[in-house]
Amino acid sequence: MNLQRKFGLVIKELRLKKGLSQESLANQSDIDRTYISDIEKGERNISLKIIERLSETLQISLSELFKKIEEYE
Amino acid sequence: MNLQRKFGLVIKELRLKKGLSQESLANQSDIDRTYISDIEKGERNISLKIIERLSETLQISLSELFKKIEEYE
Repeated sequence: MNLQRKFGLVIKELRLKKGLSQESLANQSDIDRTYISDIEKGERNISLKIIERLSETLQISLSELFKKIEEYE
Repeated sequence: MNLQRKFGLVIKELRLKKGLSQESLANQSDIDRTYISDIEKGERNISLKIIERLSETLQISLSELFKKIEEYE
């Protein structure tokens, strides 16, 4: 599974753990909702700024976020 | 200092530690040399794929790379 796909699945997992809808994650991160949906499906080669915003909203450090992605089976 | 700037400085630090020129880092990562220069100056909002390629060439995991960035003073 490629990095983009794993990234999306981990973001979705973290979002659901926080009880957030795609819409509220989108609003809190100042990102379009459909873009969140694409990210979670692994369809976006997202930028560093978007990664940072998601990590802030999901309250996880970037190193921890990528640790989860590296450990994702 | 913003994330982009810190990212660039850490990439430069890792590159120099490996004794690589910008050109060889660029060639080994299949990225344009001027783009590497921009990245190191913190002038690029780079993508997940470029981050992944750089981490592979510099032989550092993404979680370790972002750990270094988080610790960068």
